[in-house]
Amino acid sequence: MKSWLEIDKTSDFSIYNIPFGVASIQDEKLIVSRIGNFVIVLDILQDAGVFNDLDLPYGIFIQDSLNGFIGLGKKVTGKIRKTIQTFFSDADFAGQFALDRDSYLLDANMVRMALPVSVGDYTDFYSSKEHAFNVGCMFRGPENALMPNWTHLPVGYHGRASSIVVSGTDFIRPAGQIPNKETGIPSFGKTKELDIEVEMAFIVGKETQLGDTVDVNSAEDYIFGMVLFNDWSARDIQRWEYVPLGPFLGKNFASTISPWVITMEALEPFRTNGPVQDTPVLPYLQQKGNHSFDIPITASLITKEGIETVICETNFKFLYWTMVQQLAHHTVNGCNIRIGDLMASGTISGKEKSSFGSMLEISWKGTQPIQLNDGSTRSFLLDGDTIKLKARSEADGIVVGFGEATGTVLE
Amino acid sequence: MKSWLEIDKTSDFSIYNIPFGVASIQDEKLIVSRIGNFVIVLDILQDAGVFNDLDLPYGIFIQDSLNGFIGLGKKVTGKIRKTIQTFFSDADFAGQFALDRDSYLLDANMVRMALPVSVGDYTDFYSSKEHAFNVGCMFRGPENALMPNWTHLPVGYHGRASSIVVSGTDFIRPAGQIPNKETGIPSFGKTKELDIEVEMAFIVGKETQLGDTVDVNSAEDYIFGMVLFNDWSARDIQRWEYVPLGPFLGKNFASTISPWVITMEALEPFRTNGPVQDTPVLPYLQQKGNHSFDIPITASLITKEGIETVICETNFKFLYWTMVQQLAHHTVNGCNIRIGDLMASGTISGKEKSSFGSMLEISWKGTQPIQLNDGSTRSFLLDGDTIKLKARSEADGIVVGFGEATGTVLE
Repeated sequence: MKSWLEIDKTSDFSIYNIPFGVASIQDEKLIVSRIGNFVIVLDILQDAGVFNDLDLPYGIFIQDSLNGFIGLGKKVTGKIRKTIQTFFSDADFAGQFALDRDSYLLDANMVRMALPVSVGDYTDFYSSKEHAFNVGCMFRGPENALMPNWTHLPVGYHGRASSIVVSGTDFIRPAGQIPNKETGIPSFGKTKELDIEVEMAFIVGKETQLGDTVDVNSAEDYIFGMVLFNDWSARDIQRWEYVPLGPFLGKNFASTISPWVITMEALEPFRTNGPVQDTPVLPYLQQKGNHSFDIPITASLITKEGIETVICETNFKFLYWTMVQQLAHHTVNGCNIRIGDLMASGTISGKEKSSFGSMLEISWKGTQPIQLNDGSTRSFLLDGDTIKLKARSEADGIVVGFGEATGTVLE
Repeated sequence: MKSWLEIDKTSDFSIYNIPFGVASIQDEKLIVSRIGNFVIVLDILQDAGVFNDLDLPYGIFIQDSLNGFIGLGKKVTGKIRKTIQTFFSDADFAGQFALDRDSYLLDANMVRMALPVSVGDYTDFYSSKEHAFNVGCMFRGPENALMPNWTHLPVGYHGRASSIVVSGTDFIRPAGQIPNKETGIPSFGKTKELDIEVEMAFIVGKETQLGDTVDVNSAEDYIFGMVLFNDWSARDIQRWEYVPLGPFLGKNFASTISPWVITMEALEPFRTNGPVQDTPVLPYLQQKGNHSFDIPITASLITKEGIETVICETNFKFLYWTMVQQLAHHTVNGCNIRIGDLMASGTISGKEKSSFGSMLEISWKGTQPIQLNDGSTRSFLLDGDTIKLKARSEADGIVVGFGEATGTVLE
């Protein structure tokens, strides 16, 4: 498949991608797509009749979030995506509508993207065995690193939906209670251990009712697409507060997602298997076929002066638990899910140090500071530091990338 | 203050109460109030001109949830409440509008109430020292019962918003992983330790932006009102899953709230002080004045055959941490809050066994089964059991009650 539009080979947004997002254009929010360096204004295409065969509701692309659009169902949204692909690959089809390119293609650099979905509930899993092991080692030693439940179920917990922000949203270094290392008495101050967590998240595409369960082998029907996710973490605040009920203020000051939701259809060419699950799992978690995806991810740290250093190169396929297992587990007790719910993977660490997904792990609790390209070092983030997550899959000439999820720490 | 309408003295909904809720009436949802055994259809009063002095938006009471109404601000909603009080206490004022009573008063027994708010995020605190101590004793012994952070901050965690249901919504006994007590290997099955948590929750009435903090001494401006809250818990599922990131499937299958939001204005006569906080707190948690409320609460268990036993008599004022401290803590890192957010207290236990707020505590981990009025006993809930929470404050002839939060366990 090739587009009649010239698309730079370095672009994440090839004709094979065609993601969805929400753009803020002149005080209005619009559902848009993306090709190369252009944002595609879908409402203009709909008005011109490009989607006439699909019988879409009028004005379906004039919405604040993707939720209503996702609610059309994967059959319909899949056809919309295919029609956009046809439009940009078949000049004859596109020619029928006599549209001026400038009317429906906007320079992506000039468009401000908004949060793509309205997130009802956000769940964070903990599905990288290497990450769980590394963090466990630091706090409990290698023998007790993994909790007894870890290989039996995808551990997860609820996070804060209100503080999920779109890429490019900067945030203030959070303050909180930090205990004195000797006395154990807390004092109040800005976190000194501001960290990242390199994650991906999926967006729920189909709702269930309270009491329903999602079968692990039909769970893909409930997943609309994926985004990059940075679960910023204040380790000193987290360590003090998290017993016994889990992380709270150490996390809920900001979580950054990328603006483009990459559909599961676009990721199909990269389907692969995750690690072997050596501990047998209960029947409700037994998946058939391959349910992981080969998605290389990088995290870079950019200093205030603009010097960039790649600090992590990892891959979504390293995760032990798959998205379908996460979803089957999440609903096995009858918990209902809603369109737009966001379920994050947990920090994605591989076996090598270069693939660790948090600064806590890369710097091994600050004992091995990270060397940056400007000669400085980091154990945790400084004010003015920017973190940029990127992900891009390539196979047999097919490229599908995620764009980026960035955020800068303000004083 | 006295109403021209005859109100039974046993009613929770005196002229001093005037709560707000959402009723499902003929496929439509309407914001309503309550007096005695009548639901008040506010849209009819608005149409007749009762609120003309307040310059309200047209059709403000025709909404699915209270969120937009709460968004008018406490000044306006306070005036609406006062106008309703005047209408029902001043026959001359009411007489001006020449309304037929049957047009705006509905028999409360005939009206189905809906969830009062659309909950953006739900947070559960852990603010009863007695509860934290009791549970800590059972799992770690009395010396290590309270974690070191407990007296320094109101411990809290995020819960699931989607599975919050209104009183009267029954739910299926949840299934999940339960480890074998000897081998530690989990098997799959229905929970055998289904429990209740007697709580109250407040509803956020004013939003903040990411990065904002709420000062402990202005935090009351951000609290619209309160409801009863039953945080159903499957203890066997919870115990296995909760390390290290907190409760998840042991809680998110259902949480029940009462349908009427009791405003903070109505609760003002019951303002009191909570327990003395013997450990000094950091300045951001130092509250001036009294910030607790004297609200006696009961929980009854009703068997399938209809035999009712009061199993808990507790009081909101037993809580160590106050709502304003909870809110100041929740936002001290810049976490943003939204109108309709629900923040629950955690299980409210007093010092006496009769005031313990969970069956886990009342039966002391099943070692002292609870004696019911039909001669049977319970350590945890059986299928067909109903739990009813009630709360009612009385002082100087002023009565303000919460109605009830009920739910039945289905097989």
